[in-house]
Amino acid sequence: MHSIDFHAHHAAPGAYLTFTCGRWGAGGGLSVMGAQPAAQELLIGMREVDGNVHVLPFARQSVYQEDLGAFGDTSKPTAKRQRNPMGEGLHRHYTRGTDRWTWKQFAFTILTPNRPMPDPERDGPQPLARASLPAIVVRLELDNRESATERELIFAIGPGRGCHRIHGVNKDTLAVGWGSEYAIATAVVPGVRTLLEHSEFDHFDNGREFRLASMAGFTWTVPAGAHASVDLVLVGHRRGPVTTGMESSFFYTRAYATLESVIADALLRLPEMQAEAIALDADHRWLALDANRRFLHAHAEKSYWGNTWLLERAGDPLWCVLEGEYAMMNTFDLTVDMVFYELERNPWTVRNVLDLFFSRYSYTDTLARPPENCTRSGHGTFDRNPHHTPHYVPAPAETGLPGGLSFNHDMGVGGHFTEAGYSSYEAGGLQGCFSYMTAEQLLNWILCATSYVSKTGDKLWLQQKAPVFRACLTSLLNRDDPVPARRNGVVGLDSSRCDGGWEITTYDSLDASLGQARNNLYLAVKGWAAWLGLEQVLLALDDESAAREARAGAYRAATTIVSKFDDKLGYIPAVFEGGNTSAIIPAIEGLAFPLVWNRPELLSRDGAYGPLILALERHLRFVLSPERCLFPDGGWKLSSTSDNSWVSKIFLCQVVSEKVFGIIPSPASHSAHVHWEQVGSKDWAMSDQMMKGVPCGSRYYPRCVTADLWLQLG
Amino acid sequence: MHSIDFHAHHAAPGAYLTFTCGRWGAGGGLSVMGAQPAAQELLIGMREVDGNVHVLPFARQSVYQEDLGAFGDTSKPTAKRQRNPMGEGLHRHYTRGTDRWTWKQFAFTILTPNRPMPDPERDGPQPLARASLPAIVVRLELDNRESATERELIFAIGPGRGCHRIHGVNKDTLAVGWGSEYAIATAVVPGVRTLLEHSEFDHFDNGREFRLASMAGFTWTVPAGAHASVDLVLVGHRRGPVTTGMESSFFYTRAYATLESVIADALLRLPEMQAEAIALDADHRWLALDANRRFLHAHAEKSYWGNTWLLERAGDPLWCVLEGEYAMMNTFDLTVDMVFYELERNPWTVRNVLDLFFSRYSYTDTLARPPENCTRSGHGTFDRNPHHTPHYVPAPAETGLPGGLSFNHDMGVGGHFTEAGYSSYEAGGLQGCFSYMTAEQLLNWILCATSYVSKTGDKLWLQQKAPVFRACLTSLLNRDDPVPARRNGVVGLDSSRCDGGWEITTYDSLDASLGQARNNLYLAVKGWAAWLGLEQVLLALDDESAAREARAGAYRAATTIVSKFDDKLGYIPAVFEGGNTSAIIPAIEGLAFPLVWNRPELLSRDGAYGPLILALERHLRFVLSPERCLFPDGGWKLSSTSDNSWVSKIFLCQVVSEKVFGIIPSPASHSAHVHWEQVGSKDWAMSDQMMKGVPCGSRYYPRCVTADLWLQLG
Repeated sequence: MHSIDFHAHHAAPGAYLTFTCGRWGAGGGLSVMGAQPAAQELLIGMREVDGNVHVLPFARQSVYQEDLGAFGDTSKPTAKRQRNPMGEGLHRHYTRGTDRWTWKQFAFTILTPNRPMPDPERDGPQPLARASLPAIVVRLELDNRESATERELIFAIGPGRGCHRIHGVNKDTLAVGWGSEYAIATAVVPGVRTLLEHSEFDHFDNGREFRLASMAGFTWTVPAGAHASVDLVLVGHRRGPVTTGMESSFFYTRAYATLESVIADALLRLPEMQAEAIALDADHRWLALDANRRFLHAHAEKSYWGNTWLLERAGDPLWCVLEGEYAMMNTFDLTVDMVFYELERNPWTVRNVLDLFFSRYSYTDTLARPPENCTRSGHGTFDRNPHHTPHYVPAPAETGLPGGLSFNHDMGVGGHFTEAGYSSYEAGGLQGCFSYMTAEQLLNWILCATSYVSKTGDKLWLQQKAPVFRACLTSLLNRDDPVPARRNGVVGLDSSRCDGGWEITTYDSLDASLGQARNNLYLAVKGWAAWLGLEQVLLALDDESAAREARAGAYRAATTIVSKFDDKLGYIPAVFEGGNTSAIIPAIEGLAFPLVWNRPELLSRDGAYGPLILALERHLRFVLSPERCLFPDGGWKLSSTSDNSWVSKIFLCQVVSEKVFGIIPSPASHSAHVHWEQVGSKDWAMSDQMMKGVPCGSRYYPRCVTADLWLQLG
Repeated sequence: MHSIDFHAHHAAPGAYLTFTCGRWGAGGGLSVMGAQPAAQELLIGMREVDGNVHVLPFARQSVYQEDLGAFGDTSKPTAKRQRNPMGEGLHRHYTRGTDRWTWKQFAFTILTPNRPMPDPERDGPQPLARASLPAIVVRLELDNRESATERELIFAIGPGRGCHRIHGVNKDTLAVGWGSEYAIATAVVPGVRTLLEHSEFDHFDNGREFRLASMAGFTWTVPAGAHASVDLVLVGHRRGPVTTGMESSFFYTRAYATLESVIADALLRLPEMQAEAIALDADHRWLALDANRRFLHAHAEKSYWGNTWLLERAGDPLWCVLEGEYAMMNTFDLTVDMVFYELERNPWTVRNVLDLFFSRYSYTDTLARPPENCTRSGHGTFDRNPHHTPHYVPAPAETGLPGGLSFNHDMGVGGHFTEAGYSSYEAGGLQGCFSYMTAEQLLNWILCATSYVSKTGDKLWLQQKAPVFRACLTSLLNRDDPVPARRNGVVGLDSSRCDGGWEITTYDSLDASLGQARNNLYLAVKGWAAWLGLEQVLLALDDESAAREARAGAYRAATTIVSKFDDKLGYIPAVFEGGNTSAIIPAIEGLAFPLVWNRPELLSRDGAYGPLILALERHLRFVLSPERCLFPDGGWKLSSTSDNSWVSKIFLCQVVSEKVFGIIPSPASHSAHVHWEQVGSKDWAMSDQMMKGVPCGSRYYPRCVTADLWLQLG
């Protein structure tokens, strides 16, 4: 570990509920539908019999002073009370299922099973609703066997609002909470007391519950000579519609109508959840990784689940992954990266998302052809004014060319589903950030759908979606070029949705090397994979003619890409026009798909696409150098012309590098990436977009579960 | 006006929804269930054709600079855009129903009808549900008749979260909002456009809706030569349970199931709401007041309604008034002061609250007798540690004496209903703030109930509550003394709920002069009124024997109070023990009740209680001097020994002063109190507790509608 002082997501899968903590002095706490870490006061520790309080260093206030100013108290200030942060000797053991802090005889463990989400079509709705139980399990331990005095365990949250006792769960349960959404609950055991006060000091001093409390929790008296271990459940629950635009509610409300019902069942299911969390830690594939990659995987997985939201709409489940701090919903260019993890764990969620993308978040466009040898002037990546676009890019030479089906960038933002056919992100008339990603989202649907079919063998779905696959083929052919003679296998036109602007890629904010969609190396290779995916599914549909067209596209793409290899440069430049000479690692990203489809023949140096594989290998070997695509710390730099590098994409490319080319990433790179997350992103749990190792966007992010390929591909 | 730079509550009655604004640089905006002013960005103004934007000075940011840092934008900062706050020539016209700002040809008006709440038992639930329509009406005007260029009207709120278009109201309506709770809506008229962007500058520059918008509103093009007037409705709506402890929902959901249905009806009802607001301004009783008191009344009335919450529980309405920044629910010692206003407007709400106090928030205690000549040591008003109480006050000489029925201080806090029989505020074992107010709340039930019966003549309710009135009599007799021979008409014992501590009064944080309940002048006079109230209702119940007991109590109280007049001091000291010599104005507060019951014979100098009236008049004339109970600015100082003075109580005492004794408060006092509110409390709308004219608690408060007695009593 470079540091143990960093936030981590500890989430209830599908419940968009997280108990985030770990950053010192920053508090943390519970949030439902939170796009950033909560900053509640967090007091977790113990009290000595002499009154000294030791807490994990999360506490926001190391000094507490009661303030009754709002009640007109103008008398002299009350005594300052010191909280002693556990320092010297504090350890953190961070694994897939647990995050454990130990100090002397004290231990605090958060157990997150990140359990699978059962397929509702296979198993019915109840197992799924129960799987997204909105509760997180934590454990406090105190080994007081060597102590001559009793001590008190403390767990308390100050949520910034009034707290109260929750009655009516059952006689074996103590519960406290705030609002109608949040609760902390534990079993009635000897020595446990509810903490409802302004602070732990007031709790111990005054010895009772205060109904104007601003802090909620529990304390447990641990007698001298005893070894105590107590469990709590942290609960968040919302009833009724929670989204707008398209109304939906939490799916768990099918099984848990009330906060109280969650508490009761969470306490019953404690042993099961603990066992699930511990089982995660025992996954031999994960244990086989080096320590750095074990950390990166565990951290990524936790942040993925912290962004998951299982909704119910009209009786049906609706799977939604939030986009971290941006809170965009089911951002498709994240889905396509997370698909490897999701297919391994919960393939139905991929199907669910693909279905909604087709039924509601798709559209048909026409295409615009840019002028010959067109170039961009100036740096307008973040200029959102469509009237400025003509200053940056020339007007199309032709418009209204046949286009086809594509999909939106996302389904909405912050709980608001945008209207059918529109994402929250994309706007017309732009040439940089916030422009349309029409071509890339088309590739994403093809790649995700092919991966789903490949993984599950779901023939019914394949057959139902046959018209969509064919429409995708037509659309992709047109985006190459509607004039067959002009096709080269690579997207060369822009969507009419761009209103004269240019399409971009998911690397919206990186730089020009990865920004523009047209004639883009990254997208060209991803497109090659999409052609192959189409070929594969069309063959499975016995549509040999269409499959042949798809295969032809793949050949054309491969030929084009190979032809762009610049021997003088030593690599393939990132954009095939405008004189671009950026060197980029994501040239190889698209190879991940044939890899997971288990089609080694497509990746063979002496197979049908051998020239492409060889060219990309040569490219990769050349760019993977400190002069181009390595940071001084050994971290991978996606583009030679930008310091903005994306962790999720690095993992993906590292897997391709190793599994396709046998180029094993240096252990130094993993260590560097760990540093980026533990130190650079300490305030935010997992972040993706890193500017020289410090997040500049995409914080609190789900996408880095691309790391799961390390496990899947061994 | 001392200043026009202050916040005001603009509320939808019963909807716990406020559009608070008025404080410069502080923003404001919409909140549902907000215990403090929202601090959203508020942009209300106009744009010149040259791009200059003029806004009311509410705006938080006078300089706007687009920041896309979260999207990875590390390029050089974008241009700073200046908002010009309307300054020189800005006027504010603040009345009961309207708050109008004008600057040059621009005007902005907030219209708040504060309409009555129809009695659900008389009129059924629908009129009541419709009366609490959660919408606030505002109007923008621009007189562009002298202008050679078109200009744009602007209304926009930046709520600190994503904003979106709301579809599906109807074709004549434009609506934008955030979350599932808030909307701004207006009619489709020529020149209107939705503003969904990061700022008004981006809106005009980019000329379209941005689905990642952080600001929502509208703009209207006003052609040269035109005079534009446009109306908006500001809406807040919540479905489902909104309280805990005892579940209830907003009553308006019976008429308005969705946010969209509120929008549609609010726009339909615009003319009605505007007319209601304007009618309020035309109330001749209000117009008869001097300008200062007109302001104080209007300000108080707005803050009252901003704290009103009409709930539904199991099909029945539940009336709740929040306690400002504290958000305690139906605080009984506020109810008893607001009862005059409530009985004038919506008497059923008083009945509703009294019923719930009896059915759920009542209890029966025993009593403790303090030792003879007991005194307090030290100043422990705010010490919440019950273990310290023995240091301040001696242990009771006797405990377990017969007590009786009383009521809780409140029903809960911040949306949480406390368990039956317990308030959120009161705790045992204390002797200052947060102790029990058992005796005072008993008086409050008697006084409110008598006032309700007196005002409405509701015989059915009176007869149903006969056992409660009799239990109140027993309880009051015992609190005087269970031993008849020791009775003096004044509360002399402490509730067993105090666990050896002392009862306090509503003046919890003022000082000892008004703090302790036992042998307290303020409470003794209020008790005298309560004895008389009991006599009155018991006579109406034909229970002459009980009525006689009550009358005897009133005589005893009057005699005791008169006997405490200290000729050397020149007034009656505030506490009849411990050598207290504070001079207090609220000695006369209790006289308000016989006044509103229209029982002049009880207040006559030569009536049965003539000696009491004469003694209190002599008291008041003496204490109303700069040496004792007047601040240097002429404001009233409730206690000679504290700088903490309470505006609601001042108004009440001023009415008694004028109507009972003919002592007319100096106009300077009204001006001073206006200064306290407009300058001292500028951040908080109406505040009650003022430390030398600056609020030290009880901010954003409903209680000051005691000012309504100025209107009722002429």
